[in-house]
Amino acid sequence: MKSIKVIKVGGKVINNEDRLDAFLKALRQLEGPKVLVHGGGSVASTMGERLGIKPNMKDGRRITDDDTQEVITMVYGGLVNKNIVAKLQALGSDAVGLSGADVNLISAKKRNPEPVDYGWVGDIEQVRTDWLLEFLRNDVIPVLAPLTHDGKGNILNTNADSIASFTASALAEFSSVELMLCFEQAGVMKDEIMLPGLNPDLYEELKSEKVITDGMIPKIDLGFAALKQGVKHVTIRSFDALQEEKAGTELRLT
Amino acid sequence: MKSIKVIKVGGKVINNEDRLDAFLKALRQLEGPKVLVHGGGSVASTMGERLGIKPNMKDGRRITDDDTQEVITMVYGGLVNKNIVAKLQALGSDAVGLSGADVNLISAKKRNPEPVDYGWVGDIEQVRTDWLLEFLRNDVIPVLAPLTHDGKGNILNTNADSIASFTASALAEFSSVELMLCFEQAGVMKDEIMLPGLNPDLYEELKSEKVITDGMIPKIDLGFAALKQGVKHVTIRSFDALQEEKAGTELRLT
Repeated sequence: MKSIKVIKVGGKVINNEDRLDAFLKALRQLEGPKVLVHGGGSVASTMGERLGIKPNMKDGRRITDDDTQEVITMVYGGLVNKNIVAKLQALGSDAVGLSGADVNLISAKKRNPEPVDYGWVGDIEQVRTDWLLEFLRNDVIPVLAPLTHDGKGNILNTNADSIASFTASALAEFSSVELMLCFEQAGVMKDEIMLPGLNPDLYEELKSEKVITDGMIPKIDLGFAALKQGVKHVTIRSFDALQEEKAGTELRLT
Repeated sequence: MKSIKVIKVGGKVINNEDRLDAFLKALRQLEGPKVLVHGGGSVASTMGERLGIKPNMKDGRRITDDDTQEVITMVYGGLVNKNIVAKLQALGSDAVGLSGADVNLISAKKRNPEPVDYGWVGDIEQVRTDWLLEFLRNDVIPVLAPLTHDGKGNILNTNADSIASFTASALAEFSSVELMLCFEQAGVMKDEIMLPGLNPDLYEELKSEKVITDGMIPKIDLGFAALKQGVKHVTIRSFDALQEEKAGTELRLT
């Protein structure tokens, strides 16, 4: 099989219909087999607020309590996922929307409630590849929601960057894989200039200088993890630069 | 392939966790390949109310306006569908949840707005069978939500009995198919006694006597339509009687 592209797109695109349409058009034109992983954006929070569910926060992090689990299952697995699939079909790209429960695609372990109980949050244990490969061989784009399952009947909230990284790593056993973590910036930034490349040494340096902080850290860690698992090419790039060969910050192990 | 069972289950089961669990256990024990089609139950109405969406009714029928379309996409395609799939996985049955947009499974035409504009409601045009058969051959239960798509990027609300009937008919080209339309009664009733069989003559008679009315009419029509399309065996039965060989009212063309 040709090189597989695993593309993650997050909130800023999901939240805006025009941006989403433009993104999906660009995606459709990318050559070769591809997997799309979407985040949830602010739709789930907005829906939660409309339902009168108070955000349950602990140490600045949102807890996936029972009510929130219901909302993310609806919003990520239903509203966002099915709308993306219907839009791709309208563009002439065959697609299938999947949660981790579907064909047992991504099994996860509910996160240990100690020291902090984050609720229905899952850490990925295994990504099943046979159906993904079958879809890709038949020109169907798998569209993955940020939901996994625990094998006990429960849907778990799982970070979309993790889904993208683990899926890319699992597919790397069978094919050359490229991982694109798309977000609202051009790449990893230092003093408003984008770094064209980032290796572990520079990464450690920039972390200690507090240039790289917060949400960028797990994203970059997941990118490096994918490289270590055999993914050929990992970039952190703008969702506007999907089609550019040389865009974003390329992660390199050396 | 062994005879395929297409099983439709509706509101009374979807609305009640214990009933749903019992139903899925019975389903899991049914031999041979099977497709599950689920309705929405009252979950969508409840969610709509919680979101402050006023039911939009015309001539006693609910209109699928923009807000309602959003709710059914979330509730049917996300909440109900993914919970069923996660529960089946927990029971050890591989399953995949699909809307009509996924792998372009069920394409539909938005219903003509004249004489009554029902909004985002779809009448089925085509059921794609290749992926259904591929799932069934691999012991994966397709779990179909009552959602189709119009090929223009819109999700459409579609009656679950119709989805079951059209899916059974499409599969009948490739295999022997049995259709079970499950609901809260034992079968088609006359004077509190269940009719073991129903043919078109008796059906017309009972309609003219107002014994068969309202919601039973489209259900029975869809059952007869499936028989005419080559489905081998059609019953209208209780969701409690999934495993009984001789249960419910059997529809017969003669």
